[in-house]
Amino acid sequence: MEYSHFLSDDTHCFFRSPVRDIFKRVNLAEIYSFAGGYPPADAFPIDDIRRLSGEALDRWGAQCLQYGATQGVTELREAIARRYGVGIEHVQITSSSQQGIDLCTRILCNPGDIILTKNPTYLGALQSFRSYQAKPEGTLNRGNALRAEEKRNGKVAFIYVIPDFQNPTGETMPLEERMELIRYAEEHDLIIIEDAPYRELRYEGEMVPTLYSLCPERVLHLGSFSKIFAPGFRLGWMLGPTELLDQIYVCKQSVDLCPPILDQYIATLALEQGVIDRNIAHNIALYRHKRDTMLGLLEKFMPEGVRWTHPEGGLFLWLTLPEHIDCVALYEKALANEVAYVAGTFFHTDYSACAQQGLPLPGNNTMRLNFSFIREDRMEEGIRRLAEVIRSY
Amino acid sequence: MEYSHFLSDDTHCFFRSPVRDIFKRVNLAEIYSFAGGYPPADAFPIDDIRRLSGEALDRWGAQCLQYGATQGVTELREAIARRYGVGIEHVQITSSSQQGIDLCTRILCNPGDIILTKNPTYLGALQSFRSYQAKPEGTLNRGNALRAEEKRNGKVAFIYVIPDFQNPTGETMPLEERMELIRYAEEHDLIIIEDAPYRELRYEGEMVPTLYSLCPERVLHLGSFSKIFAPGFRLGWMLGPTELLDQIYVCKQSVDLCPPILDQYIATLALEQGVIDRNIAHNIALYRHKRDTMLGLLEKFMPEGVRWTHPEGGLFLWLTLPEHIDCVALYEKALANEVAYVAGTFFHTDYSACAQQGLPLPGNNTMRLNFSFIREDRMEEGIRRLAEVIRSY
Repeated sequence: MEYSHFLSDDTHCFFRSPVRDIFKRVNLAEIYSFAGGYPPADAFPIDDIRRLSGEALDRWGAQCLQYGATQGVTELREAIARRYGVGIEHVQITSSSQQGIDLCTRILCNPGDIILTKNPTYLGALQSFRSYQAKPEGTLNRGNALRAEEKRNGKVAFIYVIPDFQNPTGETMPLEERMELIRYAEEHDLIIIEDAPYRELRYEGEMVPTLYSLCPERVLHLGSFSKIFAPGFRLGWMLGPTELLDQIYVCKQSVDLCPPILDQYIATLALEQGVIDRNIAHNIALYRHKRDTMLGLLEKFMPEGVRWTHPEGGLFLWLTLPEHIDCVALYEKALANEVAYVAGTFFHTDYSACAQQGLPLPGNNTMRLNFSFIREDRMEEGIRRLAEVIRSY
Repeated sequence: MEYSHFLSDDTHCFFRSPVRDIFKRVNLAEIYSFAGGYPPADAFPIDDIRRLSGEALDRWGAQCLQYGATQGVTELREAIARRYGVGIEHVQITSSSQQGIDLCTRILCNPGDIILTKNPTYLGALQSFRSYQAKPEGTLNRGNALRAEEKRNGKVAFIYVIPDFQNPTGETMPLEERMELIRYAEEHDLIIIEDAPYRELRYEGEMVPTLYSLCPERVLHLGSFSKIFAPGFRLGWMLGPTELLDQIYVCKQSVDLCPPILDQYIATLALEQGVIDRNIAHNIALYRHKRDTMLGLLEKFMPEGVRWTHPEGGLFLWLTLPEHIDCVALYEKALANEVAYVAGTFFHTDYSACAQQGLPLPGNNTMRLNFSFIREDRMEEGIRRLAEVIRSY
């Protein structure tokens, strides 16, 4: 039977994550993988979670297994509200910060609208934006805000940025740029989505204030338990003006009624008992060491002409190779040598359009390297192989 | 600050659940509530869940806390596939069957499309349909299929039905009507969404084959762990043709990446060890008794001219009062007497339009009564009060 005529117009804009496709082809545990954005197994407080699961059931009983409020369970919203020093009415619990991105797009964006973002940017956000027939434009690079304004031909739905340890580059937006972005948003009357899943994983330097704290009336701030606790819980949170959260609330009712309840109570106890803060400290030490090892190995093995970012936190760094190197083509060679990365072009808002039209791929001499997942004792061999593949190109 | 100009066109079609609004106004545990569709606390196998949570962490370790496949964890898909005797490629795990409805609407429906359904029908489905600017039409009552065809002015996206112990009426679609519906779908080349959250809760009579088993190439079948295990897990499943599930898969990637992982492993063990089958048997005994008590009390207390359905399973029955009685107005009186129900008009596809235009509300002499949640020893007083309120109208 033929099904294509049943499909909605949105489906024509769906696109598959090339990252998830990589995961289908190889078992990442068996090769030298710098590809995913996964925490390693030793980043999860598994014994605490076993204990807290029982404690949650003891303390809240059948309530852990019942339907719950669409906004999230009150105790968890209160714990998040305390962390940020805001009122509980500014906190919505989401079923992952990916859902946060998706719900924001739903309530703010019509088909054909432009979403202003950086180039490169988070692939999952691009998937969500495109799935609603929006047009992400990666023209919001530093100092380019006004240029973006001139070039665009359509209504801008909102601005989307990851100010702390960006995915994929690892870079952090300095305070002056945050102020500049807010001025831009105010001048053009725009809402900003601040995606901050890595914010609490800082290995050096000073915290920069969130966009949300600088301009709470114009910013929807997305947080996540995935990098500080466990991605398997699929829990995140959203902070924002009550008028917008009210729309998110009604939308979430029809999308999935409420976030998973037992998981929310476990997260509540983990916050209350300091399990999450201890886990953040543990992961910072773990990842800082891995980052430093990685930076040292890049220095040691990479051929001349290769540059990389020095992230102050997060899970990724960004390699820029000499311009003639095609990182999509290089990938097959890398896989044949049992080493994996994600080609940087996939994170560009204009990648799909260029690929479809056979144009040169944007940022095709770049790649994203993850340093959180791979075992530290396997990093040296992985980077050595990657450098060799690049050199042999 | 003013926010309305930021909102997408979809938001103008969002509508709040009047059921959830009732829950905000009163604490259902404190009054005589026949309103919600909640299982009671003693319907959850809480001790098993405490044990299985530890077992899942022992058996699968950090994998319970890591990101997982968008289709759901393989072991759970296999367990569901075995239950239905289908291949695993026909099984997608969803983050609640509400999400199943929402994803189906996403991939099959454009703004302005018609969705053919029964009147009355599930409120959460109406919320999801409307949120994408679709037009649910409740003209698919028995024998009315062809009439619906004549009347409609627009493309039909799909058919939506709850064949077993329908929400809100409690009625079950007989086999002949299922066959008729499939013939209709074939004749008009339509997909059918079969929503089946209550299917396994049958208290008498014979199981009727699912629409999915009768016509697997045209049906997306939605199942749920909420009524047979625990709604707090927010887990459901979808069966269907691989071509459509592939679209659901890509869509779910951008919506929330994957369902909650630890919860999926707990559900896997609960299926493997027979915990869910034992819980179904326990709940059937529990609810059958409650239903019988309720039917006896209605017989004893209700004034003449009141009729009700005799559900063979599920959680609800449907009261039809004399035509002059306004169940929305009656509700305030009922609440003043500490008894709650949901007015039947809310479940009608034309309720919103009629309410907005000040027209008589469809099915306004009807109400939905839930018999699963209220404690059995409180049923008599609740029904006595409800009958009194009706009599005094």
